[in-house]
Amino acid sequence: MNKGVTVWFTGLPCSGKTTIADRVAEALREQGHRVERLDGDTVRKGLTSDLGFSKEDRDENIKRVTFVAKLLTRNDVKVLATFVSPYIERRRKTREEIGEFMEVYVNCSVEECIRRDVKGMYRKALAGEITGFTGVDDPYEEPPSPELILDTDKETVEESVQKVIEKMESLGYLS
Amino acid sequence: MNKGVTVWFTGLPCSGKTTIADRVAEALREQGHRVERLDGDTVRKGLTSDLGFSKEDRDENIKRVTFVAKLLTRNDVKVLATFVSPYIERRRKTREEIGEFMEVYVNCSVEECIRRDVKGMYRKALAGEITGFTGVDDPYEEPPSPELILDTDKETVEESVQKVIEKMESLGYLS
Repeated sequence: MNKGVTVWFTGLPCSGKTTIADRVAEALREQGHRVERLDGDTVRKGLTSDLGFSKEDRDENIKRVTFVAKLLTRNDVKVLATFVSPYIERRRKTREEIGEFMEVYVNCSVEECIRRDVKGMYRKALAGEITGFTGVDDPYEEPPSPELILDTDKETVEESVQKVIEKMESLGYLS
Repeated sequence: MNKGVTVWFTGLPCSGKTTIADRVAEALREQGHRVERLDGDTVRKGLTSDLGFSKEDRDENIKRVTFVAKLLTRNDVKVLATFVSPYIERRRKTREEIGEFMEVYVNCSVEECIRRDVKGMYRKALAGEITGFTGVDDPYEEPPSPELILDTDKETVEESVQKVIEKMESLGYLS
């Protein structure tokens, strides 16, 4: 019972990954589960401080996160990982390595992502002040067959959170 | 009950860290504990493939391992980490970050380590074929106050293993 899993939220910057995963984490902790949140901020200091945003560095970033998620997952932790992780092949390898894996595609139009972008990152990317920005001048490869799709420009945060928890239940990760 | 801890084995190359930690891991798993072994080999592929043996790289290596050990420890895993980890200051930071931490100094004379060195690493270091080798041309800073000292050139592997388990028990990590 209570086996580990990595729930991997992938999607454009500002698509809603962090907001939803934080809320799922809160709900699972209240139910008494072991939970870890992994995102760019939490891993940067301890794990990936040497990495930038080139394709190679992004791959290396996800490779290290995958290692950590794998160890947590096999020790019965619910890992909620939120990374843009734009490349199909890298996500495929992550799934393969971790095994107990649930991919959540946080789907949101670029227009809506721009509207939500409080840090002004899209603006800078569109102005050419930063380059290699996913959704602007760097590709995002949509998941061909994720366990779950959240349409965050059509549904509320509460609805998305509920869908994640129901999917975890139906896959046997919360029994 | 059954709280996590990182048992950190530090000492010269070939002092016996791996042999002892593997045996402790086996015993703890038999008792039903969640156990992870972390050593240079297990982390190299997923976490530290970019790192060499300079002081900076060694520090970065231990920094990443510390991050992983911290997450596992706070999720109730017994982490058995075996790293030469020659520098007091870096070990101090690791202890501080992880919190539930038991330092085991695997103490063995250089002469005995050389005798045990099946891979011939000391020979190469003494011949100048490799440099920056701890115990030969790079310093090992002895722990001033470890939770446990194992004198592996005086005691048997069985005795060392038993001492580690007894110390974990007396510190409340196996109750």
